[in-house]
Amino acid sequence: MPDGAAGLTAPILLRESAGGVVTLTLNRPSARNGLSMTLLEALGGALRDIAADPAARCVVIAAEGPVFCAGHDLKEITAHLADADGGHAFFAEAMARCAAVMQAIPALPQPVIAAVGGMATAAGCQLAAACDLVVAADTARFCTPGLDIGLFCSTPAVTLSRSVGHKAAMEMLLTAEPVGAEEARRIGLVNRVVPAAALRAEAAALAGRIASRSAHAVQLGKRTFHRQAGLPLAEAYELAAAAMVENLLAEDAAEGIGAFLAKRAPEWRHR
Amino acid sequence: MPDGAAGLTAPILLRESAGGVVTLTLNRPSARNGLSMTLLEALGGALRDIAADPAARCVVIAAEGPVFCAGHDLKEITAHLADADGGHAFFAEAMARCAAVMQAIPALPQPVIAAVGGMATAAGCQLAAACDLVVAADTARFCTPGLDIGLFCSTPAVTLSRSVGHKAAMEMLLTAEPVGAEEARRIGLVNRVVPAAALRAEAAALAGRIASRSAHAVQLGKRTFHRQAGLPLAEAYELAAAAMVENLLAEDAAEGIGAFLAKRAPEWRHR
Amino acid sequence: MPDGAAGLTAPILLRESAGGVVTLTLNRPSARNGLSMTLLEALGGALRDIAADPAARCVVIAAEGPVFCAGHDLKEITAHLADADGGHAFFAEAMARCAAVMQAIPALPQPVIAAVGGMATAAGCQLAAACDLVVAADTARFCTPGLDIGLFCSTPAVTLSRSVGHKAAMEMLLTAEPVGAEEARRIGLVNRVVPAAALRAEAAALAGRIASRSAHAVQLGKRTFHRQAGLPLAEAYELAAAAMVENLLAEDAAEGIGAFLAKRAPEWRHR
Repeated sequence: MPDGAAGLTAPILLRESAGGVVTLTLNRPSARNGLSMTLLEALGGALRDIAADPAARCVVIAAEGPVFCAGHDLKEITAHLADADGGHAFFAEAMARCAAVMQAIPALPQPVIAAVGGMATAAGCQLAAACDLVVAADTARFCTPGLDIGLFCSTPAVTLSRSVGHKAAMEMLLTAEPVGAEEARRIGLVNRVVPAAALRAEAAALAGRIASRSAHAVQLGKRTFHRQAGLPLAEAYELAAAAMVENLLAEDAAEGIGAFLAKRAPEWRHR
Repeated sequence: MPDGAAGLTAPILLRESAGGVVTLTLNRPSARNGLSMTLLEALGGALRDIAADPAARCVVIAAEGPVFCAGHDLKEITAHLADADGGHAFFAEAMARCAAVMQAIPALPQPVIAAVGGMATAAGCQLAAACDLVVAADTARFCTPGLDIGLFCSTPAVTLSRSVGHKAAMEMLLTAEPVGAEEARRIGLVNRVVPAAALRAEAAALAGRIASRSAHAVQLGKRTFHRQAGLPLAEAYELAAAAMVENLLAEDAAEGIGAFLAKRAPEWRHR
Repeated sequence: MPDGAAGLTAPILLRESAGGVVTLTLNRPSARNGLSMTLLEALGGALRDIAADPAARCVVIAAEGPVFCAGHDLKEITAHLADADGGHAFFAEAMARCAAVMQAIPALPQPVIAAVGGMATAAGCQLAAACDLVVAADTARFCTPGLDIGLFCSTPAVTLSRSVGHKAAMEMLLTAEPVGAEEARRIGLVNRVVPAAALRAEAAALAGRIASRSAHAVQLGKRTFHRQAGLPLAEAYELAAAAMVENLLAEDAAEGIGAFLAKRAPEWRHR
């Protein structure tokens, strides 16, 4: 199915919203949900929309078909090897677009949960690792197999090495061997493993729980988490303490503390 | 029990010393050992005293009652919501004081061991995570439940994200669900899990082992560990190599190597 | 066996090459493979040779005898305590040489695998941790026991704290207790644990697998991995995206992708 026809037939990225949870579903199952330029554009556009949508409170990234995402679209890449510049301009554009999407996930105000049911390879593994949380079916597998085709997965390594230890990341990158869901949990890439039939429900329950919180607190917290992570300790504390004060002065904190002390359910202002 | 009365009745922070080990025990069990301004001041003062005490060689932070520490004192915070500035000045002071205590632990010359027997929530979880080592009873639980009351645990996130992987930290922060002792060990927040009845003995044995070492070597090593951790590799090695040379030239190293080669017990100068 | 006699008798560092895999074997078993100045010099020289050798595609560091490596040569260090400067100049030179070897491993173009069959202590533990991958026999043990002799393992801490969580690293450093192979795998220091009899074969198989890859891709990838690891996210992605474009434009990627699409085995140019 050519991506160009996407607007006319089934969209390559499905988007549904319910109860504050936006579910984005990769919908190129016949192409193993490969991240073509069009799919990357669709993902980037959806994330921009969600960032600006006050009704969106949590995001789930899921996939149609048995494969979560096979990474970049190999056929698209191969086609450009015949370009006058050997593909240079296209590859640079593809890598830039992909890196922008991967960085848009931690930069998104709302938390993002990957729901991985099958194989997640190369940039597909990167997509899962870039999410704040990963729920995996017991059928999920994670792999950075670039070396099988002469390509070290250098951009997937950026997210992988920030999710798991360096030895585990290097083993995945150098061996190109897939890692099962439980092993992915052991090394820190996956939060929860559930039976395949329960994957969507588990991701939805987790997202629903997050969507039921004060959006102001969740978004301030996610932003602060990522900003403090790379800072020296004193600077990290300065930033986080300022965020706590801002959070404490917001209406939702007064409501939350008041509800807690009165033993009633809170009514968040920032829904 | 108002903290203001602490000096007149039981102190809110107990301090005992034996064999070079200083045990600080949070003693507000009826307030779930909440970190009131007075308790933070007491902790900060105790750490300052210990830093200057050549007889103090290792520190254990423990707690009276079934809860290790429930974080900031919610009643104190609520009371200040009625201040003319909505609590701004008080919150800023509370966060600054708390962050100072949390940073005083890694900055302390002596190693610090948390002995966690029950629930450690929010800044209480942060207090445990800020320690060099954590011994937990099998009854211990760790939780950053701020979102339950509209407050993302941004300052606890600073220590949490430096102890465990980002996915595990984000799950605790976004779900507000408690994590048991064994799971806390799995993700790297806890070093050892023991039966509840053995908690104090295990922490004391670990502290006693550290206290039996050359204090010069222990303190130079702890300081170097924290300083090198955030540096680029070459700078980290330069710093650590200089520390090794300083350590090798100290009397205790000569004594330690000599005792080892002579197969006798060392007699440290810096006790 | 004095190191000075090494050239005349068995070399203290064995070097064999087969199928692109260079195996370096520490060969001072009677001295527990202690890292004497001569052995450090031999290791440094071998790594320099390998870096310049286009036929070398992967490296295994192994050891003769029941001990992997006991760290610095204690007798050599003790002898210099009697120097006019108390050993200052010698210790500085020893630490500098050791740190240079440890940094030469991640800086080496080719991946390096430690094959650890027995005890790896102090700088021996550091040597294993400095490698890209660690395969351990179930008889392997890892230990930073410097405090037993009045010396905090500050330089081993540099690699240890970059391989495992801070709490696990601090426990090894402060207790000086050995960690078994499975526990070392749990905390992230070891990739694979195999029966002792299978250690060499497992390391060789892993190395052979890496050696069968495009050397251009492997070396570009390893270099990019280590360079991006300490950078802020945006800079890391910029660096990694540039590496991906360079990799895609190389002959081996065209060959690899072509072979994959044609379902044939690739023939790498850069062997």
